[in-house]
Amino acid sequence: MRPMSARKRIRAALVGCGTVGGATARILLQDKELLLRRSGVEVELVALVDKSFDHARSLGIPEDIFRSDLDEVLADPTLDVIIELAGGVEFPRTLISRALDAGKHVVTANKALLALHGRELFAKAREKGLTIGFEASCAGGIPVIRAITDGLLANEIDAIYGILNGTSNYILSEMIHKGSSYADSLDQAQQIGLAEADPSLDVQGGDTAHKIAIMSSLAFGISPEFTDIPVSGIDNLDEQDVLAGRDLGYVVKLLAVAHRTPLGVAMWVGPAFISREHPLAWVEGPFNAVSIYGHAVGHTLFYGRGAGGDPTASAVISDILGLALGITPALFGHTGFWPDRNGETRQLPAGSEELRFYLRIMAVDKPGVLAAISTILAREQISIASLHQNEQARGQELIPVVITTHTCTRQAMNRAVQEINALDITGAGAVLLPIVDEHPEKIS
Amino acid sequence: MRPMSARKRIRAALVGCGTVGGATARILLQDKELLLRRSGVEVELVALVDKSFDHARSLGIPEDIFRSDLDEVLADPTLDVIIELAGGVEFPRTLISRALDAGKHVVTANKALLALHGRELFAKAREKGLTIGFEASCAGGIPVIRAITDGLLANEIDAIYGILNGTSNYILSEMIHKGSSYADSLDQAQQIGLAEADPSLDVQGGDTAHKIAIMSSLAFGISPEFTDIPVSGIDNLDEQDVLAGRDLGYVVKLLAVAHRTPLGVAMWVGPAFISREHPLAWVEGPFNAVSIYGHAVGHTLFYGRGAGGDPTASAVISDILGLALGITPALFGHTGFWPDRNGETRQLPAGSEELRFYLRIMAVDKPGVLAAISTILAREQISIASLHQNEQARGQELIPVVITTHTCTRQAMNRAVQEINALDITGAGAVLLPIVDEHPEKIS
Repeated sequence: MRPMSARKRIRAALVGCGTVGGATARILLQDKELLLRRSGVEVELVALVDKSFDHARSLGIPEDIFRSDLDEVLADPTLDVIIELAGGVEFPRTLISRALDAGKHVVTANKALLALHGRELFAKAREKGLTIGFEASCAGGIPVIRAITDGLLANEIDAIYGILNGTSNYILSEMIHKGSSYADSLDQAQQIGLAEADPSLDVQGGDTAHKIAIMSSLAFGISPEFTDIPVSGIDNLDEQDVLAGRDLGYVVKLLAVAHRTPLGVAMWVGPAFISREHPLAWVEGPFNAVSIYGHAVGHTLFYGRGAGGDPTASAVISDILGLALGITPALFGHTGFWPDRNGETRQLPAGSEELRFYLRIMAVDKPGVLAAISTILAREQISIASLHQNEQARGQELIPVVITTHTCTRQAMNRAVQEINALDITGAGAVLLPIVDEHPEKIS
Repeated sequence: MRPMSARKRIRAALVGCGTVGGATARILLQDKELLLRRSGVEVELVALVDKSFDHARSLGIPEDIFRSDLDEVLADPTLDVIIELAGGVEFPRTLISRALDAGKHVVTANKALLALHGRELFAKAREKGLTIGFEASCAGGIPVIRAITDGLLANEIDAIYGILNGTSNYILSEMIHKGSSYADSLDQAQQIGLAEADPSLDVQGGDTAHKIAIMSSLAFGISPEFTDIPVSGIDNLDEQDVLAGRDLGYVVKLLAVAHRTPLGVAMWVGPAFISREHPLAWVEGPFNAVSIYGHAVGHTLFYGRGAGGDPTASAVISDILGLALGITPALFGHTGFWPDRNGETRQLPAGSEELRFYLRIMAVDKPGVLAAISTILAREQISIASLHQNEQARGQELIPVVITTHTCTRQAMNRAVQEINALDITGAGAVLLPIVDEHPEKIS
């Protein structure tokens, strides 16, 4: 007799039918047999809640599951899970809270919401014995939440370095390979539909900061203070620095960094130079990747599409299937959000993290310029690793002085830059970019 | 009141204290508090079974857990799981079977055993309601079994491309970057302890074949026939082909490939050219990586250390913690080993997979050589994509003719090569290497 697998069932309602919601609904309906074959779980999508169903109709989603009355949906006692893909912060915050009150599990892709109000919602879910699945909140289709909370669970996580915003990475790839400006590259990204009309959350680093905050909670057991995460974006990046980095052997990437130091977990988000030998330097176009360093496993990297309907739906649905299989509840149940397990780890105050830096100063070609700059750096105990200044070209008033430093605190460097900018022999806009060296593996 | 997390306990016995066993024991004992903090699970290592305890002693493992009587250990009713890290095939096959009979869960890293006898052992575990955890059997510390069975569970897996043997990848990196011979590179790998005295299982592709067989079972629901997996190694690779590949824009890697075709799943293992644009081409030294293409998620890649004590122990321990948390049983319970869910997928017979090829023929410099070669290829319906032949150098008797082809079956190519080798105007050893193009993403 052939053994038969046990079939499990889960009944879901989806709120929000945009790019990710639409893809999720389409896959749940079209690929029902595939999902059953892969997982043994039969997912029934019983309701789709939105204000407008134009997009849902265009995807061929059957009208009989369209609902505009959320209360009615939440009141359905046969419903197991609410899939929140509405976007925004206040509406989904209330929605999830109400779903938990109604005894429903929740699956969400909402990184902003979780970064800002995750603890409150997670605590409520715990109290009620319910689960919030949020694999899709970080790095789209890459199962990186599961890597931190399951696959690498035997590790003390030493560091996370991530490329977490596909729009920014695409723009940087354009700038690097075509030598084009930020504005032209953004324009290109908008034309192919990768960048939104208002790209600020992507290119200014906010989206990346939300994601590293969530991952750091899980990996380090901290509750990140946003004000202690220095965040900058790629929107002020000059192509001459991109090219200068290339000449020095680096690639510029919008990085999210979180790593243990003896004094606490250092976190920051911003454009930075990373060695071209590091796997993160290879990540091109709209792809995302996350390097995770564990004390036993050493360096691991997880790569894939960090956004888009289908890839994000892949993560959303893995959480739904995992709810039925017991995986998502097990992951949610043990994660490092428990206050009793996270007493000791603290977050380093912004600016006190130690980094190497690239510094470009525009200076007049006069005696004493280098002396003045190097005196300021020396006063801040900042050691120069390399310095390049070319001869003045015809008609050039200010010439770039390019310096790389040994490690120093960001505060010390910021003070030095302020002083250098105030010199009457320099332009006011010195450019400062961190340099990220390969994180050491600690495996024995 | 601060909520307290639930503490879970699991009692484990470890059989085999070699490199991986020793690292596993050391981490379980030394990092007990860390594991508890990360997972809420307290792992008690109650017995270490081996024939000799020299290595265990050198690691400082306390003698009071040393056991030489396996029967006594298996008879302990308080024991939850047997960790099999003994190596070999027949001993662990019997051991696991007996552990299951004794009602114990099993965690193993043994790829050869699972590739050869996995079905039998998995079926037995199922019958008894027990779990076999085998995350460590493929790609060491990279949680790729979990990617296939959990993180990417919403996907129809289209293809898997893996660099699964760190020893071979290290040797190839040496050949590529230093232009050194296979023999010298192997020698170097042996000197730094990466290659064993008898490296045949690594360099001849057998180890890689075991791993892709296990991953394919899970991803495609097939039960691979080893005789239908063409396997070749890097041990006959000539550095001139490595360099010729580089000139054509490729990097040579020992690849494991499994992908769906309309007629079945095509599988093969061997050195191949892969485009230098593909992330797998970037994987250097002893690292492993696995590209998985899913119908929703598109291209994902998982990178890390595929061997070594600590990285493999990381995977072993994730399975132990996962047993206590309910994750490993949930993963094991739903996997595609169920015969009732895997009726339709078949494996393509060896040789019928379609590939592009690199072909180097050593030929005399006489009229009619290219005509003869191209006639043979045309007869087999093999279309030439590029052809390079340089002018004869002084004293050179045979000159290399380098051809790349469009797709054809391996059988057709093998027939053509046999005929070409038999020509009296060629040397007998035409070199044939598959060329792997970027697998298309199917996401919408």
